[in-house]
Amino acid sequence: MTSLPFAQLPAPPYYSVIFSSQRTAHDEGYGETADRMLALAATQPGYLGVESVRDADGFGITVSYWADLASIANWKAQAEHRQAQDIGKQLWYQHYELRIARVERAYAKSA
Amino acid sequence: MTSLPFAQLPAPPYYSVIFSSQRTAHDEGYGETADRMLALAATQPGYLGVESVRDADGFGITVSYWADLASIANWKAQAEHRQAQDIGKQLWYQHYELRIARVERAYAKSA
Repeated sequence: MTSLPFAQLPAPPYYSVIFSSQRTAHDEGYGETADRMLALAATQPGYLGVESVRDADGFGITVSYWADLASIANWKAQAEHRQAQDIGKQLWYQHYELRIARVERAYAKSA
Repeated sequence: MTSLPFAQLPAPPYYSVIFSSQRTAHDEGYGETADRMLALAATQPGYLGVESVRDADGFGITVSYWADLASIANWKAQAEHRQAQDIGKQLWYQHYELRIARVERAYAKSA
């Protein structure tokens, strides 16, 4: 991650894609592709932001935020992203869960 | 985390609380309280599961899953949890974002 960890989002409602995943030991191409997908997602219609974290055991949660369900469907179908999804399923992820959720309320707090 | 990283959830719809946070350097009591809150949450009405990860830089995402908004409100108001929230705001978290979202679709994949 080269950006700040917190997404700057508009007021709800908007949509989230909650992607939790356990990585395999196959690192080939993973880092470059993950960075590329974050950059590519940010250029898509309806993209609002992303927050992402992975620990030393390879478990991670990435939450991306979108204006609506059509934006999420469009991103899922994007050609280069589809290719990355295929390699992810075959090589990079031992297991993942993907949940699409409508954000209804949001709060923030800074020290 | 002593449990498996992935939550075992029913079919949607259900609700999620997406809590992303940046920790301060104040560690006093944090680990014990975090573990206690995970255990206590699991005993609350409407609790469905949790996934949580924090990296070495102190940025973390915890997503807890609940049957409905009433369950989330009940957990937020739970006395011991409120006390932990107060200490968190004052001591443990430099910044946090909390988003409540209705999960509408879910997919999973294992290698």
